[in-house]
Amino acid sequence: MNIDIQKVCILGAGTLGTRVALQAALSGFQVRIYDLSEELLERSKQTMQKLLGALRKEGRFTEIEDEVLWSRLLFTTDPATAVKDADLINESVTEDVGIKQEVWKRFGALAPEKTLFTTNTSYLLPSMFAEHSGRPERFCALHFHDVFTARVVDIMPHPGTDPGLIAPLERFGEALEQVPVLVKKENSGYLFNTMLLALIGAAGKLLTKEVASVEDIDKSWMVNFHMPQGPFGILDAIGLDTAYHVTKARKDTASQQFAALLKTYVDAGKLGKKSGEGFYRYK
Amino acid sequence: MNIDIQKVCILGAGTLGTRVALQAALSGFQVRIYDLSEELLERSKQTMQKLLGALRKEGRFTEIEDEVLWSRLLFTTDPATAVKDADLINESVTEDVGIKQEVWKRFGALAPEKTLFTTNTSYLLPSMFAEHSGRPERFCALHFHDVFTARVVDIMPHPGTDPGLIAPLERFGEALEQVPVLVKKENSGYLFNTMLLALIGAAGKLLTKEVASVEDIDKSWMVNFHMPQGPFGILDAIGLDTAYHVTKARKDTASQQFAALLKTYVDAGKLGKKSGEGFYRYK
Repeated sequence: MNIDIQKVCILGAGTLGTRVALQAALSGFQVRIYDLSEELLERSKQTMQKLLGALRKEGRFTEIEDEVLWSRLLFTTDPATAVKDADLINESVTEDVGIKQEVWKRFGALAPEKTLFTTNTSYLLPSMFAEHSGRPERFCALHFHDVFTARVVDIMPHPGTDPGLIAPLERFGEALEQVPVLVKKENSGYLFNTMLLALIGAAGKLLTKEVASVEDIDKSWMVNFHMPQGPFGILDAIGLDTAYHVTKARKDTASQQFAALLKTYVDAGKLGKKSGEGFYRYK
Repeated sequence: MNIDIQKVCILGAGTLGTRVALQAALSGFQVRIYDLSEELLERSKQTMQKLLGALRKEGRFTEIEDEVLWSRLLFTTDPATAVKDADLINESVTEDVGIKQEVWKRFGALAPEKTLFTTNTSYLLPSMFAEHSGRPERFCALHFHDVFTARVVDIMPHPGTDPGLIAPLERFGEALEQVPVLVKKENSGYLFNTMLLALIGAAGKLLTKEVASVEDIDKSWMVNFHMPQGPFGILDAIGLDTAYHVTKARKDTASQQFAALLKTYVDAGKLGKKSGEGFYRYK
């Protein structure tokens, strides 16, 4: 398939959409980023400025002039402007099946014929909205982690995806300084989150069964693997509210018991790093 | 409890016993190391020399004079000599319930009254041999990982262990430059291996269900967590024969399917790093 990606449309200017848009612009792509209000777009722009400052402090992307960078980014609340001439759409809207279906129905109808459709969903599956886009064969999951530190991008086709999309999406991921991995069959949570949840589930079970303390469980992982965080430190970074919802959705007894424990933290306002306290206290 | 540990007896001069003995000597303890034959003891001594060379290349333990170090180590095939005046026994014999029971029956009867009994078992439980030692209340698991790189030591009492043993064992672990963690209830695999097996189980399931390749599953973990190895790289280091036995012992369907896959590697002589090939090839 002769696919040349140069112009990118990002749907949803939240945490992940903002990061993907910034990296795409840093990598030289023309980027249009869409959200529902000017306020949301303004916030996204401010986040980009902060991110860029932090990255440049680390010595990254210092060679790119501000004027050039910002000229590659267009923020818009107008759907037609957003998808105009787009080679690829990457959708990062709210993690809700109904909302994503509506969005793909709308933007699928508006997009030029050449556009590739990709979703950045974290736990849903591309087959849930592929048909709604009107072009299931050109629809695929393209899932980023945090773009700048965790640089894996999952490429996950649904059964109706044209296999010819894989190679251009891999090249696009590499152009965005990511390491592409292929998820050959639809799998909620892709590869990394599937493994991370297994680790966290085992840690949660050790805790709820009172086998060991939060600190000792984390230490076992951190010291043996020379890692800066153990499973509970990771949960504090993810947010215990998110962790609660994900754990609650798993139906086995151990997950339900761990979800009940996580709920006591959430109910007490201990949401992890972002609230200043979770399993650990933060300053 | 007023326990002063100065003299240590190591039962079993295999991989782990050798390392614990060497670290104990490096930490200033008087160490007697026992095994069944002079040949096994000679091999242990050679392993220590190699280890020491590698550690000193890294700049570690360079301040300890060889003469002083070796004067702290006594290699013996005589049980009475091995336990003479020992403050603590750490047992690392073959991972077999019957053998460990025999060993504890024999050495429990020989040891001085003051001796603490500890087992370095990887997957068995201290309650399986505590009674055989004749002093279950002075019996506890004290489990090392690889001593020099993975520096966690698990302290795991069985229900009959005197709680007064915990603090002296923690101090002993720290004296051996380990990070002690308390496993409050008997749990096969302690903390680290329980979590590692969950991670490996999830990775194995992704592979047997053909969701992704070995390389892509590993990459997801390595790139996002900035780790030098993913689950299959770790398995190659552990040895696929060991991995097969541990996985085979787990009775769920996913483990059985992964065990069947591991068996094809073992049957083909691909045991991981030690044989030059496993999931990956090694030079």
